[in-house]
Amino acid sequence: MITKSKSPIGVFDSGLGGLTVLTELEKILPNESFIYYGDTAHVPYGSKSVNTIIRYSRNIIEFFMIHNAKAVVIACNTASAVAFPEIRSCYDTPLFDVVMPSVVHSNTISKTRKIGVIGTHSTIFSRAYTQSFTNLKSDCSVIEISCPLFVPLIEEGWTNTPVAKQVAHSYLKPFKKTEIDTLILGCTHYPIMAKTIQEAVESHVQLVFSGKTVGDILVSYLEKNRFKNDSELPGKTKFYVSDLPQKFDELGSRFLKRKIEHVEHIPLW
Amino acid sequence: MITKSKSPIGVFDSGLGGLTVLTELEKILPNESFIYYGDTAHVPYGSKSVNTIIRYSRNIIEFFMIHNAKAVVIACNTASAVAFPEIRSCYDTPLFDVVMPSVVHSNTISKTRKIGVIGTHSTIFSRAYTQSFTNLKSDCSVIEISCPLFVPLIEEGWTNTPVAKQVAHSYLKPFKKTEIDTLILGCTHYPIMAKTIQEAVESHVQLVFSGKTVGDILVSYLEKNRFKNDSELPGKTKFYVSDLPQKFDELGSRFLKRKIEHVEHIPLW
Repeated sequence: MITKSKSPIGVFDSGLGGLTVLTELEKILPNESFIYYGDTAHVPYGSKSVNTIIRYSRNIIEFFMIHNAKAVVIACNTASAVAFPEIRSCYDTPLFDVVMPSVVHSNTISKTRKIGVIGTHSTIFSRAYTQSFTNLKSDCSVIEISCPLFVPLIEEGWTNTPVAKQVAHSYLKPFKKTEIDTLILGCTHYPIMAKTIQEAVESHVQLVFSGKTVGDILVSYLEKNRFKNDSELPGKTKFYVSDLPQKFDELGSRFLKRKIEHVEHIPLW
Repeated sequence: MITKSKSPIGVFDSGLGGLTVLTELEKILPNESFIYYGDTAHVPYGSKSVNTIIRYSRNIIEFFMIHNAKAVVIACNTASAVAFPEIRSCYDTPLFDVVMPSVVHSNTISKTRKIGVIGTHSTIFSRAYTQSFTNLKSDCSVIEISCPLFVPLIEEGWTNTPVAKQVAHSYLKPFKKTEIDTLILGCTHYPIMAKTIQEAVESHVQLVFSGKTVGDILVSYLEKNRFKNDSELPGKTKFYVSDLPQKFDELGSRFLKRKIEHVEHIPLW
């Protein structure tokens, strides 16, 4: 029997964006093993209804439980925003979302108490970030802006092109009239475009990366419960997808910053 | 019992792009009734495997058959490219795709015998257009270019912006070195951006719209078989979707150029 500390950590996203979160987790927790599930048959979650997203998320969490996962990271902003509040207490295995950790961190570091959030239409429309600051009884004011063209620009590999800079400038212009000093990247794709985003806002604005913030919380949880893998060997990561997209290797490797050796196709209907 | 001429025509797409095809069909066949099914729970088809797209297409065609459809238009380039060849002979109800009609029309009108095709990654990657010209034993040479940013630019309402013009110029630049005189818009979204696309190629290049070309073939079929609706009243269109996206009304109305009054949510798993 595998002891809990040797068990893997499940990480999922509707597609490949969550690989930026996985990259951070692998960096912070080099001796842990991970299972990544990309729900590529159902990407993007943003255009789906709440009940549909909950159903997909449950299927994936149950898949992780079959693999004896000791924790699950919902590395998808849409699922974190709309499914996590509904399913967080349904499992013995702890679930970690990517919204609250960034909210807590931003609330700690902001001096001007004005915080920006950028994300896809569905994430911003859900008002999940504003709601999380309210739940935290934060005194920060939150300005949310949706940037729907960032994901396709990133997937097209156009992150540092004049077009991407022009789009970023156009979307982020309203922040210039505010006094935000902290900007949450509320979409797992956006770290790939961080340089262009930073250039489009004032240089003193600190970008907040959800992979890093959820990673810190995950480390605390594992240490507190003595669930950290005490092996001195580097951990292994397994990749699963629900459908095999054409550009998976190319896109996945760009997001993960290394080659993905093997991907298994496991549909979960 | 409804006579065949009174029966509706089914039109489907993975999402809303097919509404540009429906607009053309309603214009050409004003007395026909239509059923539009947008498979918004599964959009985009481009990132799905062939077997998955075939399964979704079959479900929708069977839904149309329950509604006694006298013909089905696959108003989706991905489904036309990858599912149509597999399922075209499986039903008594005739199926019409959006690839071959544009290929036949372009083959007729091109004088330079050099034809351009633009579409999403998945459509271009499938080589469905080049294959269709080969099947037709055409002497035309075909140059295919994928333009993945066009769909998000259109959905964002940025079709005539400097950014869209820059993206179009960048994608379509390779055509300038060729002698194409005909350009097939191989994605149902693209008619919305036709002006910007036309400006980015030589002015003598004729754009080919699949809604128009499939419409002409559909009219011939209905007339030849005496299936045309002989009513003098305007036809009605009913709208169905598999999931209710947030921006359906706004986006749908922009694609259809009129307000969508009522949309029914019918998931087909």
